[in-house]
Amino acid sequence: VPCRTIADVFLEAERQSVDYGVVPVENSTAGAVINTLDQFLETDLLVCAEIELPVSHNLLSKGKLAEITRVNSHPQALAQCRRWLAEHLPRASQVETPSTAAAAQMTRDPDTAAIATESASVLYDLPILVPHIEDVSTNVTRFLVIGPHQSGRTGRDRTALVFTVDDRAGALCAALSTLAKRGINLSRIESRPSRRRLWEYVFFVDLDGHPDDSDVAVALDELRQTCSFVRVLGSWPR
Amino acid sequence: VPCRTIADVFLEAERQSVDYGVVPVENSTAGAVINTLDQFLETDLLVCAEIELPVSHNLLSKGKLAEITRVNSHPQALAQCRRWLAEHLPRASQVETPSTAAAAQMTRDPDTAAIATESASVLYDLPILVPHIEDVSTNVTRFLVIGPHQSGRTGRDRTALVFTVDDRAGALCAALSTLAKRGINLSRIESRPSRRRLWEYVFFVDLDGHPDDSDVAVALDELRQTCSFVRVLGSWPR
Repeated sequence: VPCRTIADVFLEAERQSVDYGVVPVENSTAGAVINTLDQFLETDLLVCAEIELPVSHNLLSKGKLAEITRVNSHPQALAQCRRWLAEHLPRASQVETPSTAAAAQMTRDPDTAAIATESASVLYDLPILVPHIEDVSTNVTRFLVIGPHQSGRTGRDRTALVFTVDDRAGALCAALSTLAKRGINLSRIESRPSRRRLWEYVFFVDLDGHPDDSDVAVALDELRQTCSFVRVLGSWPR
Repeated sequence: VPCRTIADVFLEAERQSVDYGVVPVENSTAGAVINTLDQFLETDLLVCAEIELPVSHNLLSKGKLAEITRVNSHPQALAQCRRWLAEHLPRASQVETPSTAAAAQMTRDPDTAAIATESASVLYDLPILVPHIEDVSTNVTRFLVIGPHQSGRTGRDRTALVFTVDDRAGALCAALSTLAKRGINLSRIESRPSRRRLWEYVFFVDLDGHPDDSDVAVALDELRQTCSFVRVLGSWPR
């Protein structure tokens, strides 16, 4: 079931009109997908799996490179090709579209290009002007599968958390040390504005382990005593 | 001297065709301005001051709210009004523009609106359809002033750092504890992809203090021994 926005994916999964939702959470070049992180603050859905997909971008157009004055694409695709665009199309305006497919669909004039996939090139009959224009060749997007239940312990798991800390020296360090002193590895940390108080942040953390692992269970208990807010966003097999 | 992009501000300041550059680094609602963070990895310029500006957004259009099918604005403004747009204009397409002023300038048809300032309303003769549509009323953008020199110690300073840590359990915690154990407060931490290795990150940290403070100097020395890469991005009076 295709959804128009990330918020819609959460909504459909919350209504249980679908079994699971799939949302992008991070790209290896452009970084966090902030819409997805912010949605996790407003849902009871849990992460139950992750998917990594290599992503390659192509410049599609009916015109020539020298003619292009406008480039349509999804903001993540524009971000993943920022250096290429600055070098080859520094004067072209960049127009944000809901998806790379939508960008290809709306690109008709020879002075306009879309950044999109090979399959969009075929589907919308738009020649590939320049293939593989992503700034970093190992360009991978990580997606999370969200649903009503988290996955059981497999012994090789990852767990996502969100928490806030008090505004005092060492507060974040104290929170992280509850994990570090038990040898629990963090694969990722992201901060986002809490949207409640000025310059207050929430921290999104991915750790190696499962809440049913005894060391993770103890660390989470301690974290709940240290932090004003802690929520496990889900666990899944690595 | 107005510049078209954040990269251009860095470029003009590097060429010393201007004394200082001013770049947005963070908004209290939408979070980090990732283009600015990423530019700091590729420059020798130093932060020497910061500016906080309250930001209010308005929906400008010649049409009525029910007619609007397209909203033009800068991606940060769209992000800061995301909830309002989802509620009041869920079907309207969002078009990214280089600035909120450019959005107002290109908005002519009654089915199109711009998110922009009051002064853009006057300048481009575009009525304010709905004032103050930002999602969070205390909406503040923090700007950094960049130039060839950092500011001297005043006793009430802030310092920006960027560093990478090894991929092992507790590595980030060890780095942060060099600051925490000396009572040095972090006002902010952001992670960004390193763009060198898959799922490797750099961390941007703002701390309270100046490299000429003895505790900060010792902490920085220790950090340089712990981390594979550390750079002070500058210091400025709080």
